[in-house]
Amino acid sequence: MEAPHPTRVPKVFLVRTEIDAILADLGEGDPVPSERDLAARFGVARETVRQALRELLVEGKIRRRGRGTVVSRPKLTQPLSLHSYTEGAIKLGRTPGRILVGWEDVPADAETAADLELEPGTEVMHLERVLLADGERIGLESTYLPLHRFAGLRGSYDPTTSLYAAIRASGVVFTAARERIETVLAAPREAGLLECTTALPMLLLHRRSVDADGAPIERVRSLYRGDRIAFEAMLSPEHA
Amino acid sequence: MEAPHPTRVPKVFLVRTEIDAILADLGEGDPVPSERDLAARFGVARETVRQALRELLVEGKIRRRGRGTVVSRPKLTQPLSLHSYTEGAIKLGRTPGRILVGWEDVPADAETAADLELEPGTEVMHLERVLLADGERIGLESTYLPLHRFAGLRGSYDPTTSLYAAIRASGVVFTAARERIETVLAAPREAGLLECTTALPMLLLHRRSVDADGAPIERVRSLYRGDRIAFEAMLSPEHA
Repeated sequence: MEAPHPTRVPKVFLVRTEIDAILADLGEGDPVPSERDLAARFGVARETVRQALRELLVEGKIRRRGRGTVVSRPKLTQPLSLHSYTEGAIKLGRTPGRILVGWEDVPADAETAADLELEPGTEVMHLERVLLADGERIGLESTYLPLHRFAGLRGSYDPTTSLYAAIRASGVVFTAARERIETVLAAPREAGLLECTTALPMLLLHRRSVDADGAPIERVRSLYRGDRIAFEAMLSPEHA
Repeated sequence: MEAPHPTRVPKVFLVRTEIDAILADLGEGDPVPSERDLAARFGVARETVRQALRELLVEGKIRRRGRGTVVSRPKLTQPLSLHSYTEGAIKLGRTPGRILVGWEDVPADAETAADLELEPGTEVMHLERVLLADGERIGLESTYLPLHRFAGLRGSYDPTTSLYAAIRASGVVFTAARERIETVLAAPREAGLLECTTALPMLLLHRRSVDADGAPIERVRSLYRGDRIAFEAMLSPEHA
């Protein structure tokens, strides 16, 4: 048996543990003591405290408010399900919103074409939206739809409302989906749209949904801010 | 409707797009052109190329080998299921391995106690292991087991083998689990054990498994290197 890799515990980790204990006694929205106060309290350099606070920001435990820092509300926890982000947010008592970034026909790349069972290069409908919860930017959703099924949305659908509701209203039933979950860093454009830095870890989801006949409905690429959302799956023997 | 947030595309992003195109023509294990070559080819500073390559390392698309850099093999894609990491790796044709980091009884913290339906502070068995695939460090798994059910493992179980197989051999049936998926940065100790930096985004999974009577079997905290693994879920109306 190989020996575990040797490690050392830097000072910032000890400070982090101390700050965690302080936060445990605070409530949502309570101000976090200042860098200067914390450095004095623990007898460490301000840079050490700054690094610990940066970690807590990335994890979504604290957040900037005006010139200060406060304790965050818990992350939005979404079930992995056939429902849309919007429907999940409503179930959790959060007010969903969407900002339209783009809506145009584009040629399908190889992966999109494979998922939608089209020839690469076939024009598909591309809808890109920023997803909001209670007005906060949570994710960036890129949906690709086959035009032969959904070109009609162009005349009737308001892209700031639920796409799943509009698709269902057209008689299509979401029957199954495959969802792939990774973590990545945001590209600069994505970080700009999500109002975060490119150093913030993101959850990247790729979904392919099919209808009752197994015919593809959509390919979706969603990028979620890792400090604001978590996903939850209920596993049973059918998944085994 | 709010206007999309304005963005600008820095030079590193353009370079990144060029490198992506180069990689698309290379195969697994092929050497990636050097920083100097790429900088000369695109007429940009070496630091710009370095940053683009750093992003590709974080995403697991390329990796260091000796003094050079090569194209990575695809990420290990694990189904979200009642099976263990080990069983998933075998199904994918990868050779699983485990390095024991620690195995001791510890008092349960509030969350562990709640998941295992014990009083906080009750002693529980804690097993911490580094998970390997084909000899590479993929994840760090921390399992908490109720002693009243599993103290017997101490005399019989080899912790470099599958824990799920040992638990099943004792007659326990994994019937359902809840799994929460987040992204975080590794703490220094964790980064050391996984041989990566604290800037690499990680997938953090928390699992609670129960048996056929709904009695808790385990609470597991698993941290996976985001450059080496992705998870996949198959969704059906039962999850709706």
